[in-house]
Amino acid sequence: MDGKAQSEGGKLWGGRFSADNDPIMEKFNKSIDFDKRMWREDIKGSKAYAISLSKASLITKDEVSSMLKGLDAVHDEWEAESFEIEQSDEDIHTANERRLSEIIGPEIAGKLHTGRSRNDQVVTDVRLWIRQELKTFSNLMKLLITSITERAKQDINALMPGYTHMQRAQPIRWSHWLMSYGSAFLRNWQSLIPLHAKINILPLGSGALAGNPFNIDREFLAKELGFNEISLNSLDATGNRDFIADVLFWLTQLSCQLSRFAEDLILYSTSEFGYVKLSDAYSTGSSLMPQKKNADGLELIRGKAGTIIGRCMGFMATMKGLPSTYNKDLQEDKIVLFDVCDAMQDVIQIASGIIATLTINPEKMKSALSFDMLATDVAYYLVRRGIAFRTAHNLAGQVVKAAETKGCSMDKLSLAELKNISPKFEEGASQIWNFENSVEQYAASGGTSRSSVLNQIAKVEKGVKADILI
Amino acid sequence: MDGKAQSEGGKLWGGRFSADNDPIMEKFNKSIDFDKRMWREDIKGSKAYAISLSKASLITKDEVSSMLKGLDAVHDEWEAESFEIEQSDEDIHTANERRLSEIIGPEIAGKLHTGRSRNDQVVTDVRLWIRQELKTFSNLMKLLITSITERAKQDINALMPGYTHMQRAQPIRWSHWLMSYGSAFLRNWQSLIPLHAKINILPLGSGALAGNPFNIDREFLAKELGFNEISLNSLDATGNRDFIADVLFWLTQLSCQLSRFAEDLILYSTSEFGYVKLSDAYSTGSSLMPQKKNADGLELIRGKAGTIIGRCMGFMATMKGLPSTYNKDLQEDKIVLFDVCDAMQDVIQIASGIIATLTINPEKMKSALSFDMLATDVAYYLVRRGIAFRTAHNLAGQVVKAAETKGCSMDKLSLAELKNISPKFEEGASQIWNFENSVEQYAASGGTSRSSVLNQIAKVEKGVKADILI
Amino acid sequence: MDGKAQSEGGKLWGGRFSADNDPIMEKFNKSIDFDKRMWREDIKGSKAYAISLSKASLITKDEVSSMLKGLDAVHDEWEAESFEIEQSDEDIHTANERRLSEIIGPEIAGKLHTGRSRNDQVVTDVRLWIRQELKTFSNLMKLLITSITERAKQDINALMPGYTHMQRAQPIRWSHWLMSYGSAFLRNWQSLIPLHAKINILPLGSGALAGNPFNIDREFLAKELGFNEISLNSLDATGNRDFIADVLFWLTQLSCQLSRFAEDLILYSTSEFGYVKLSDAYSTGSSLMPQKKNADGLELIRGKAGTIIGRCMGFMATMKGLPSTYNKDLQEDKIVLFDVCDAMQDVIQIASGIIATLTINPEKMKSALSFDMLATDVAYYLVRRGIAFRTAHNLAGQVVKAAETKGCSMDKLSLAELKNISPKFEEGASQIWNFENSVEQYAASGGTSRSSVLNQIAKVEKGVKADILI
Amino acid sequence: MDGKAQSEGGKLWGGRFSADNDPIMEKFNKSIDFDKRMWREDIKGSKAYAISLSKASLITKDEVSSMLKGLDAVHDEWEAESFEIEQSDEDIHTANERRLSEIIGPEIAGKLHTGRSRNDQVVTDVRLWIRQELKTFSNLMKLLITSITERAKQDINALMPGYTHMQRAQPIRWSHWLMSYGSAFLRNWQSLIPLHAKINILPLGSGALAGNPFNIDREFLAKELGFNEISLNSLDATGNRDFIADVLFWLTQLSCQLSRFAEDLILYSTSEFGYVKLSDAYSTGSSLMPQKKNADGLELIRGKAGTIIGRCMGFMATMKGLPSTYNKDLQEDKIVLFDVCDAMQDVIQIASGIIATLTINPEKMKSALSFDMLATDVAYYLVRRGIAFRTAHNLAGQVVKAAETKGCSMDKLSLAELKNISPKFEEGASQIWNFENSVEQYAASGGTSRSSVLNQIAKVEKGVKADILI
Repeated sequence: MDGKAQSEGGKLWGGRFSADNDPIMEKFNKSIDFDKRMWREDIKGSKAYAISLSKASLITKDEVSSMLKGLDAVHDEWEAESFEIEQSDEDIHTANERRLSEIIGPEIAGKLHTGRSRNDQVVTDVRLWIRQELKTFSNLMKLLITSITERAKQDINALMPGYTHMQRAQPIRWSHWLMSYGSAFLRNWQSLIPLHAKINILPLGSGALAGNPFNIDREFLAKELGFNEISLNSLDATGNRDFIADVLFWLTQLSCQLSRFAEDLILYSTSEFGYVKLSDAYSTGSSLMPQKKNADGLELIRGKAGTIIGRCMGFMATMKGLPSTYNKDLQEDKIVLFDVCDAMQDVIQIASGIIATLTINPEKMKSALSFDMLATDVAYYLVRRGIAFRTAHNLAGQVVKAAETKGCSMDKLSLAELKNISPKFEEGASQIWNFENSVEQYAASGGTSRSSVLNQIAKVEKGVKADILI
Repeated sequence: MDGKAQSEGGKLWGGRFSADNDPIMEKFNKSIDFDKRMWREDIKGSKAYAISLSKASLITKDEVSSMLKGLDAVHDEWEAESFEIEQSDEDIHTANERRLSEIIGPEIAGKLHTGRSRNDQVVTDVRLWIRQELKTFSNLMKLLITSITERAKQDINALMPGYTHMQRAQPIRWSHWLMSYGSAFLRNWQSLIPLHAKINILPLGSGALAGNPFNIDREFLAKELGFNEISLNSLDATGNRDFIADVLFWLTQLSCQLSRFAEDLILYSTSEFGYVKLSDAYSTGSSLMPQKKNADGLELIRGKAGTIIGRCMGFMATMKGLPSTYNKDLQEDKIVLFDVCDAMQDVIQIASGIIATLTINPEKMKSALSFDMLATDVAYYLVRRGIAFRTAHNLAGQVVKAAETKGCSMDKLSLAELKNISPKFEEGASQIWNFENSVEQYAASGGTSRSSVLNQIAKVEKGVKADILI
Repeated sequence: MDGKAQSEGGKLWGGRFSADNDPIMEKFNKSIDFDKRMWREDIKGSKAYAISLSKASLITKDEVSSMLKGLDAVHDEWEAESFEIEQSDEDIHTANERRLSEIIGPEIAGKLHTGRSRNDQVVTDVRLWIRQELKTFSNLMKLLITSITERAKQDINALMPGYTHMQRAQPIRWSHWLMSYGSAFLRNWQSLIPLHAKINILPLGSGALAGNPFNIDREFLAKELGFNEISLNSLDATGNRDFIADVLFWLTQLSCQLSRFAEDLILYSTSEFGYVKLSDAYSTGSSLMPQKKNADGLELIRGKAGTIIGRCMGFMATMKGLPSTYNKDLQEDKIVLFDVCDAMQDVIQIASGIIATLTINPEKMKSALSFDMLATDVAYYLVRRGIAFRTAHNLAGQVVKAAETKGCSMDKLSLAELKNISPKFEEGASQIWNFENSVEQYAASGGTSRSSVLNQIAKVEKGVKADILI
Repeated sequence: MDGKAQSEGGKLWGGRFSADNDPIMEKFNKSIDFDKRMWREDIKGSKAYAISLSKASLITKDEVSSMLKGLDAVHDEWEAESFEIEQSDEDIHTANERRLSEIIGPEIAGKLHTGRSRNDQVVTDVRLWIRQELKTFSNLMKLLITSITERAKQDINALMPGYTHMQRAQPIRWSHWLMSYGSAFLRNWQSLIPLHAKINILPLGSGALAGNPFNIDREFLAKELGFNEISLNSLDATGNRDFIADVLFWLTQLSCQLSRFAEDLILYSTSEFGYVKLSDAYSTGSSLMPQKKNADGLELIRGKAGTIIGRCMGFMATMKGLPSTYNKDLQEDKIVLFDVCDAMQDVIQIASGIIATLTINPEKMKSALSFDMLATDVAYYLVRRGIAFRTAHNLAGQVVKAAETKGCSMDKLSLAELKNISPKFEEGASQIWNFENSVEQYAASGGTSRSSVLNQIAKVEKGVKADILI
């Protein structure tokens, strides 16, 4: 028995497959289409590696000089968009070395890969790429946060209903709502610091799996490439993609926060709420209904969150149960990483633009403040007059009911009627029915009073000015 | 208070955003880059709709004739790859109508959208597109299944260890292993029938949300476009994307099955197992280690499963909690759908190619059959001689232990030694130590005997020849 | 070198672990705590198997009679809640056989497992369990759908804004909104048919992996246990959990639909919309704010969808990349299955209860109908007078703008002002400003006119009365 | 029109639902069954809050003293397992306050909730609970890491094949493989520091959403409860569950790492590899096959990873698109959190136990080292003699082929035959065929030489002894 399926015995499929070549497999296997965007990092890493080969006396001064010049030439071709990818260029590493070889000759170029493997090369490239990307994200987050703090300062006077369970709960400042996201985004921005630390570790010098046999100075390589540390173990360094999951999760969490921000604003921009109006730049009309103005920008932000959650978790499912070291499954990493990073760059900028350009309708916000939202204030009024909170909460419930019975809003109850419920109500009780007063009482840190919100703004502004050195 | 953030007050971001335009938003909002691949379906749907407008006396015979000719012309441009997308073509619907308008004039072209909305148009296009794609998948599945049955017929003689928990359990036929996937894939192929039924429902005539006001004959439209049914409710028809989740799940399940298939073959192609050798077309070498031959094709198949699980679930997370009817979040649907369909077309073909071209090593399989795998057969031998299974199982355990004590394999125990354990052991007991015999006893339906496996092959071959009419 | 870690060398951990026993592992490994709920199915399967052993002459008539009586006795103990689980009962299969053995003696009981393995036993149990569960779900879905159709019939007169992108789009009937979910749930209910078909396949007779060696009549077993088919391949039958993923996905999709239904109703029950008021049974108050009434029931329904998406995805990630046949990883299947089924039974009933008991506010709905929602009707008016839709759409836009300029709603424009925009406006144009008329024009199938909605109700009522035989 | 569905009109469902009560909803809504495990944290938080009320002069010294005593009494009842949960105890907060009220009377107990809401109370409890749980995880991780380092030190002499793509690649030390996970787990353990920092922030004093109106000193509260910071914004503090997602992700990543660790060991414990043998404590047998010993412990660890990925993802899907502040959907948080924490405590301990008690088979490892794994060493031999790596790689390929042609392993080629391929081969070339030599050359940091691995062990041992102060 030969063991190999005969084409005679299986005409349907036999004629289709040959042992040598399957163009679908070739396409499936190639990564150059997406990993070429790391050309800059690949060259940067190769230059540092060339120098370390020279320091380890594996190549001569002339050779390293030739390599560096050649790599610079390759760099310039990419930058000038004149680099031509060839059919045989499976990935960016192959492509760059092939071109280097053409420029400086195979004899010298053939020494560049000494002791290195695409396994340690590719993770070095990806870490360098992410490091740069995190800088971009840091700047975009600053833009987003500043859009919010600027807006919050300017709109500090606007009061609106605060909601829980989407039911009107207590009056708050619109700027307090803004700063709830300002705080969340600052927290996320600050998380870039430990994230960056997990990224900024050098895997180069780990070879295919077992390490480097040529006394390459990895500490030198780290310094040359701006890494803080070197990886501890070569198997882990080449097979581990936790750092990519870390980046994906960071973006997923940001995306989820932004989906809630978008949900709030979509609701606030309905006819029923009417608190905000998006700029035309972030809305679209209808092909059928001439009067429509839809919050497309926000809906796309919200929708992306689902996709990105799936991207993050899908990648973890890819890693789950994989044997250690490099397996080709890991090629999925860059497709997901690039896709999510690109989407989130758009998302953050659009969110910033929406915040910066929307128009608020303070009158609509104000008219949505109803006196029943002050029921807690009634209880607090009584608490301040010595009644236990649970009792006061109960009495406030009676005030709510009395107003319902009388068919009026609570503020229309007479002092006599209030006293009927509790003798603790006094002349000044009518002060309760003032939304500004209500808001101002929440003066503890983090609350919705003017001073507290201004304090939040100041803290976030100060926070985002910190030099987080990533 | 004006309510609009002042650029004076927010220099950092103020200069960046204007109310009229944000190129990032425009790019983010546009779908033409990916939905253009539905050009054919979009034109098909428009042609049917034009006829229905004519039947409803909303346009004249001449007008419909002009529209159809114009739409054919647009069709030809796409086919000839001469269609030019313009900056203002937000999506494929806009693009095709814009071009139609240029060809037949805006007066007649402007009537095509009467009573229609992009909301019912886009889901009609997507359903038509999927219907075609399912045909392709049906054919690819047939190829995959046939690769397996052909292989299973040819390799019917090869025995190998069957595993549970990756531990050697009982001897089976290699073809039985093949047919375990043949059965799974047939089951999945047959699931195309109810899937197709859920896809093949006409949403056109639902308008933006409320329905069609012009007595459009939706039954006619369905017939014209080959749909089996019309959708029941216009809100549901335009806002529902369950049918896309259905397709994604179908592919996710297939992808998971293939990931297990890949895992098995990756193990079987290790040096340690050595049962199969992949064709060079589906393997690659190492940039560092000259001796390596890696099962890249299988690893990519396995890795994709994680990504696709995430794609499917991410899309469901996008839909989760969305208000009913159309929301822009749903634009994510096509990106995910196209991405997963493309990947799975590759995956199925590569899996078929791998099966068709791999080489098996029957000797290596045979040498991995160890006598301890026949311990169950020892128990069965005793069962056949009237001993209760639990007792027989226990006695077989004693045989295992006796061999260990003697330091030999079980077949080397003498009849006397066996009789010592149970008097039921007789002369013919040595027949137990025959792997072919062992395999042949599993003759009940679905088992691993020759006749049973051939029967499975016949059933699957017959199953896959059924005309499932999708 | 011994190869075994010495406790001397590793005090920290050495003293903690012994080779014989780890109570955490025992707890982790056991499934009796959750799989005991399949006691009924396990006994049912064993009874059928006992009969088939007798038919295959592996046990005598007396033995089978004893087994059946014994199994009935075990059954009665479970039903009377007097069955005592012992420490050594690892799973429901072990527990039932152990108890049987105590009742009828080990000699006969020890024959029950002949040719069977827990691998084919457990999937038989699970399939039987799911089959029963699907019946329950079918009945609950009927309850849910009937709650909706009853409500839709009763509330047929109520008009409300239809939304897309959460912006008011066109007037619709409240019952049309209800029926959008009625249609979706009917579709999902009908999907029980192919789902049931995938469940109702007998795996018993597949042994641990290789099949059954004792001429067990699997067709008889299938008939006895009410299965439609027998599984094709024993490896696939014991290692495949696709059918559980199918059930999970069906429930995930239903859960996602219900999350959208919940989202709509949460919005409709806000102060800002005010269209519906939930019954107190499904709302709760606040520990702090006396006036609050929160839609907790709906929020829990919406929240569960996220959890269930994750449950489904997580199970597929567990299966992804697993070697074929049984692996212990699959023990996760029942935990997830039971958890999701239990949650969804609650969810469906609560959704039904909410629909049945909520109060609508038709006046609030009506007052939310604004004349700008009739802009499409203006266009349609002109279309009916021969103007091409695109032109009419544009003219309707001018009407919108004219009203804005004049500072009035569109219905306040005089005929002269309308004629100024298009001479096609005539005396009867004021008929446009009638929401009932607007709604009634959508008379094509699936639209929002009274007759169309009543027709939808009739179709769904008829659909749900079908005997789907599961 | 009344708007409320009539029971007359809907018998099927009308009789089932009343407006006042639905026991399923009550069960669904209650959280006491799972949140009671936070009783300790709830009491701790209440004690601190009571003191802060006293400091703010809202209660007297006598009152606070009575409250603290009463809370201690409640504490003692829980500890003594004598606390009786009543029907009306919806959650742990209600239960504890109800009991306090019984003990010290409603007048004083009724003041405890002054200015507090269950919204800020529950997140305070959860953060306190997690903080304690992270300590437990920190200790378990130390146990796990120490199991590995102890094992790695003891087994330092054992060589085995290193794999990439599951194909034999280069020889490595078994301890190097161990330390690849030791490194990963140390990295994960160190990630507890920023995770702890995100947890250890006080939300108390945020009220339901708007803040605290009674000059509560939140800095004091933070200090009293051991929090590092106070939350910035009350809306964010009560509605944000990012910190729970952070914990879930941390555990998901750890679970994924452990799934790879488990996959490796499952393979290494097959008959085909045979490198390790699990202790009986972590293996089980078969109900059918007497000879089986399955790696159940490892399979459960691998399987859990899928479940946990889904748990994490599901929770993010629950949060996605939620309006800001508290919504009842968030009740899912604790179910998921407790479930995942419990599972991972088991997983880590079982993994530690497996490592500590397994037996390695160094002979089997050694015999799996084949000379083709030294092909890279052949290339390196030539590189050290001045040949460019690419050329050397090619020549090594020729050596591989020459051995194949001759039908021997590479070490059997004569020097003449080698010289025929390259004159650079010299007398000492036979030194290549020494696996120990091969391993020892990887002496750069992170490599597989003895010194490098011992260095890794030292670093990890030192790392894990750091006081990370969480």
